[in-house]
Amino acid sequence: MGIKKYSFRSDYCELAHPKVLEALANVGRAQLDSYGLDEFSLRAGELVKTKINAPSADVHFIAGGTLTNLVLISSALRPFEAVVAPESGHIFVHETGAIEAIGHKVCVMRGEGGKLRATDIEAVVVEHCDEHMVKPRLVYISLSAESGAIYTKEELLEISRCCRKNNLYLYIDGARLGAAMNSPFVDLKYEDIANMADAFYVGGTKNGALFGEALVILNNGLKADFRFHLKQKGALLAKGAAIGVQFEALLRDGLYDELASNAVAMGLKLADGIGELGYGFLYPPVTNLLIPIFPLGVADKLHMIYDFYDWQNLGDMTAARMLTSWATPEEMIDGFIADLKNIG
Amino acid sequence: MGIKKYSFRSDYCELAHPKVLEALANVGRAQLDSYGLDEFSLRAGELVKTKINAPSADVHFIAGGTLTNLVLISSALRPFEAVVAPESGHIFVHETGAIEAIGHKVCVMRGEGGKLRATDIEAVVVEHCDEHMVKPRLVYISLSAESGAIYTKEELLEISRCCRKNNLYLYIDGARLGAAMNSPFVDLKYEDIANMADAFYVGGTKNGALFGEALVILNNGLKADFRFHLKQKGALLAKGAAIGVQFEALLRDGLYDELASNAVAMGLKLADGIGELGYGFLYPPVTNLLIPIFPLGVADKLHMIYDFYDWQNLGDMTAARMLTSWATPEEMIDGFIADLKNIG
Amino acid sequence: MGIKKYSFRSDYCELAHPKVLEALANVGRAQLDSYGLDEFSLRAGELVKTKINAPSADVHFIAGGTLTNLVLISSALRPFEAVVAPESGHIFVHETGAIEAIGHKVCVMRGEGGKLRATDIEAVVVEHCDEHMVKPRLVYISLSAESGAIYTKEELLEISRCCRKNNLYLYIDGARLGAAMNSPFVDLKYEDIANMADAFYVGGTKNGALFGEALVILNNGLKADFRFHLKQKGALLAKGAAIGVQFEALLRDGLYDELASNAVAMGLKLADGIGELGYGFLYPPVTNLLIPIFPLGVADKLHMIYDFYDWQNLGDMTAARMLTSWATPEEMIDGFIADLKNIG
Amino acid sequence: MGIKKYSFRSDYCELAHPKVLEALANVGRAQLDSYGLDEFSLRAGELVKTKINAPSADVHFIAGGTLTNLVLISSALRPFEAVVAPESGHIFVHETGAIEAIGHKVCVMRGEGGKLRATDIEAVVVEHCDEHMVKPRLVYISLSAESGAIYTKEELLEISRCCRKNNLYLYIDGARLGAAMNSPFVDLKYEDIANMADAFYVGGTKNGALFGEALVILNNGLKADFRFHLKQKGALLAKGAAIGVQFEALLRDGLYDELASNAVAMGLKLADGIGELGYGFLYPPVTNLLIPIFPLGVADKLHMIYDFYDWQNLGDMTAARMLTSWATPEEMIDGFIADLKNIG
Repeated sequence: MGIKKYSFRSDYCELAHPKVLEALANVGRAQLDSYGLDEFSLRAGELVKTKINAPSADVHFIAGGTLTNLVLISSALRPFEAVVAPESGHIFVHETGAIEAIGHKVCVMRGEGGKLRATDIEAVVVEHCDEHMVKPRLVYISLSAESGAIYTKEELLEISRCCRKNNLYLYIDGARLGAAMNSPFVDLKYEDIANMADAFYVGGTKNGALFGEALVILNNGLKADFRFHLKQKGALLAKGAAIGVQFEALLRDGLYDELASNAVAMGLKLADGIGELGYGFLYPPVTNLLIPIFPLGVADKLHMIYDFYDWQNLGDMTAARMLTSWATPEEMIDGFIADLKNIG
Repeated sequence: MGIKKYSFRSDYCELAHPKVLEALANVGRAQLDSYGLDEFSLRAGELVKTKINAPSADVHFIAGGTLTNLVLISSALRPFEAVVAPESGHIFVHETGAIEAIGHKVCVMRGEGGKLRATDIEAVVVEHCDEHMVKPRLVYISLSAESGAIYTKEELLEISRCCRKNNLYLYIDGARLGAAMNSPFVDLKYEDIANMADAFYVGGTKNGALFGEALVILNNGLKADFRFHLKQKGALLAKGAAIGVQFEALLRDGLYDELASNAVAMGLKLADGIGELGYGFLYPPVTNLLIPIFPLGVADKLHMIYDFYDWQNLGDMTAARMLTSWATPEEMIDGFIADLKNIG
Repeated sequence: MGIKKYSFRSDYCELAHPKVLEALANVGRAQLDSYGLDEFSLRAGELVKTKINAPSADVHFIAGGTLTNLVLISSALRPFEAVVAPESGHIFVHETGAIEAIGHKVCVMRGEGGKLRATDIEAVVVEHCDEHMVKPRLVYISLSAESGAIYTKEELLEISRCCRKNNLYLYIDGARLGAAMNSPFVDLKYEDIANMADAFYVGGTKNGALFGEALVILNNGLKADFRFHLKQKGALLAKGAAIGVQFEALLRDGLYDELASNAVAMGLKLADGIGELGYGFLYPPVTNLLIPIFPLGVADKLHMIYDFYDWQNLGDMTAARMLTSWATPEEMIDGFIADLKNIG
Repeated sequence: MGIKKYSFRSDYCELAHPKVLEALANVGRAQLDSYGLDEFSLRAGELVKTKINAPSADVHFIAGGTLTNLVLISSALRPFEAVVAPESGHIFVHETGAIEAIGHKVCVMRGEGGKLRATDIEAVVVEHCDEHMVKPRLVYISLSAESGAIYTKEELLEISRCCRKNNLYLYIDGARLGAAMNSPFVDLKYEDIANMADAFYVGGTKNGALFGEALVILNNGLKADFRFHLKQKGALLAKGAAIGVQFEALLRDGLYDELASNAVAMGLKLADGIGELGYGFLYPPVTNLLIPIFPLGVADKLHMIYDFYDWQNLGDMTAARMLTSWATPEEMIDGFIADLKNIG
């Protein structure tokens, strides 16, 4: 990476925010309870519950997103039950069949703008009508979505109502929940998520933690015996405090939202700059993940200076995926825009 | 835990050695490659290979021991193939059926002193003779064993030869490899393990790391496509560097063996003290894990002052499991012996 | 097999009773509903329910015993839950890890005489005390057992009470249920089984059917969505009537018990003959499965004339497993005894 | 079903051809080897191999299609490997997630006319480029397809070449292989299938057998240890001869093709009649499965007299799925056409 000016590949390029590492160092040689039952994890769990205003929720800290997704989904479904997800859903595309590996089919619909709609869910439910087909039982969506989009409160309400009507769990992958909730375009509050979802996670890895996600279980039916599932899937860390300490540091004084705000601010500044130079976007930019559309020649030149993924081939254009993070310096945005101006 | 003097429950009570956390802090805001392909993980992998003198090995860093075991075993076996393990093996007893959850039976033998013998393996192979039974394909042992014992070089050679003769992989759970290799009673070198095993892991969690284990794959047949297995099981951390940085810090200047040496020294000092007071042991103490035998009355009084597990009920006696760690202060050993003297 | 006088290897050596095949032929070219919803299967289901006096039971017809076991167990357990079985249990020994392949550990106890005891179950429950271990949830026993033994009503009551107390399902493998229920030594009725078990199956394959078992589900909690499980595991035959027709033929006029009675009568006659010649048995013979103990020299000579398995090596003796079936002719028993007399 | 004139729902409405049942009856009380090692199964296996001109193939008899598919696919794939199939593929739609339940993702493409094209396969291979995605390893197609279509020799050759180039197994679901091979529109021979596929099955259930399919494994890499897979998945019948006897009866004197020919002849006669009355088809009818398009009013009236499935809703039209079988009498076709004429 060294030879390029900057990487916009992801929001997990930088290791961890200094305050997070400082909190870990401050533990010193204190002896802690193991497997997530230490005082740090317990306090961090309380902070999560306060933040989302869900005092009766269960909170579990897990090393990464794929592991979080697969443990929760494995715990929720019986063998013949299936997940409904948008075609762009991370579990469908980029987790190497992790859900199928625990035995479950993922039924996908195209959705719109990378977002699943209540009508998509209804269609899947109607189609799966007898025992020759799997039975849909859990809806998986991401907030923000893999396209960078955010569900509106109304959209999420419709999805939630549709789920309750059809006996479906609603599970929200919150790898980028911070970015979503700190977007100027969002009309949801953390509390709304807790009211509408049966489970979701508050992502740490992509928002300044060294590693770790906070899984929140709201539906009582999903709470019992969850630690058995965690242990069986290798998700119960002996030193669970390693994540608890981090989340305490992130949530105690607002650091979590502060970091997410910077990521989004940098993302939108980048979007503005790109837009002002006359380039369009695959979806309207609202968080720290943008998908600008560049002519191939421009993209090729940018690739020589910056790191980013090509999201979609559009013939003589390419849709590029660009991410900013809590650590992205403003001057890198300015520099990129200047370079883009020169190239274009 | 706070009100008791000290916990001898495990070697993962303390979070992480300061030098490990310092190394993490030193990374700063550098942008790193993701999913274990960063420079720290690459350098740490080289250090592992140098340490075990196996230049062509593959090294993967994984968040915890159960996850490491299940990914390796899942990658190695076809559906009808099984694991052979000692009855006390961690995967058989204390991983909530993680191996069965990925589809494989664990065939156990009692072994001796918590160690599996080549003759045990032969017996399992002979017994499983046709397609109505699973086919043994991988031998799982721990070094040091769950009983605290260490395999001798001769024992391990016999097991290794037995495995090669019978087309069995030999996989060694090295959660406490450091303690084993730094025992004054060991006659094995790291290099011997690499020569005899098809895969093993160098445990970090129980030897001063915040979290993480280094899985070493030696058999070429097990190397291909391993990252697919990691990703599918949720074991490929986006910020893989979080482990790589730690292992570089542990291995670069000998910290790993230094920490293990302290754990073992404290364990053996504790064993000596207990022995001098006339108590026996379930197995001869050779590492940082001891199983002393106390009369129930003594054990009850100790439990009021110290934390430790009861390993086995022996009627009017109890076999207690006690562990020391890299962080155990010598005065805690002295204190415990003094308390035990008073109680006895 | 042709050159030997007779095979005592199993009770499934002969294809099917003529009346069963006649019933299949009588269907002619009638068009039938598929997937077990045809009139024959429905009537056969009613006959099963009448026989066991359980009008609210659900009955499903499945091609074979291993498939029946794995579908039922897969439907009943959540991922971290486990089966408790005797060490000689068919699912533990002779189904190639079928239960582990659907994700579940089988916890075994030695039991006595091939039978599991309520105290064995209690011991397993007590031992599995936290989320680091699987949670026992279903008890598997066979009636008659793999050793040929039959549980007494009192033994089964104790097991049933123990299961209910500990929130365990009781599932009975009835591959040889006919033989058990038609033994002069049995004090159980079909109805008792239905009252005590949560599910069991009435075996057809080993009692005159061409193939097929009748799975009976009594616990309401296990009934819902069962056809999804059947279909997913490949156990829902398009021509389900192929089994339904057979069970109607077996149950309508008492053929099922008639065939089992002959199998047992021949078994006990064989046992008497062997006993009168001074040979002992590993377990007291009570059904159509005997385990006589022969000196190696005698066994070797018998193997030249008859087919049977060696069950256990006892040094200079061998425990031989011998089975009679619905089709075993009395003269074969007489012949065997005469041959044994000459050999001994 | 009784009150309607006839069912065109499927080709498995009638139980079994009389000669098949006669063959079963002729076995009498002969004692047979178990688990598919009997003389009938061995002879039937030879007949299959002769028919497809593949003397070194392995043949296994399995109770049903879903079970056959899942055992073969489970045996062929490592955990991260996936199946490529057409969107209409039976394993994707109508087997209740059986393939996902054994851990594998099914990647689908729309294809054309219900048939997958080599270019579809290439596209899936190209798209799955790294360890964050599953790795395609086996192509599943059906012959005849679920749409009733038949692959041409050229199409199958292209698929086969594409598979070999991309290290993909080609597996063909032959539930309706008989109908395909006896269509006047086919340009493939049984031998061609054997030359191009790595494995396929010759369906019995839908072509006059009581139950059972003959799985043919051609690729040596898929042969070893296959009986372990069969047993583990509950697919190794104790009385394997129950299928072997049937296949011997079907293949010895040409009965298999004779029955398939009748099914196809009746199907095409039905197609002709429908076409002559001016109705179109979703795909050109070439086998015993037709998908005619009727106005809703016509379909509603037909449903009152005949049994058949609605395959697809087309607004004010419906695409109906109709099947004929080995047992369909010509007068039923005439009657249906007459009724359709009256209704239309």
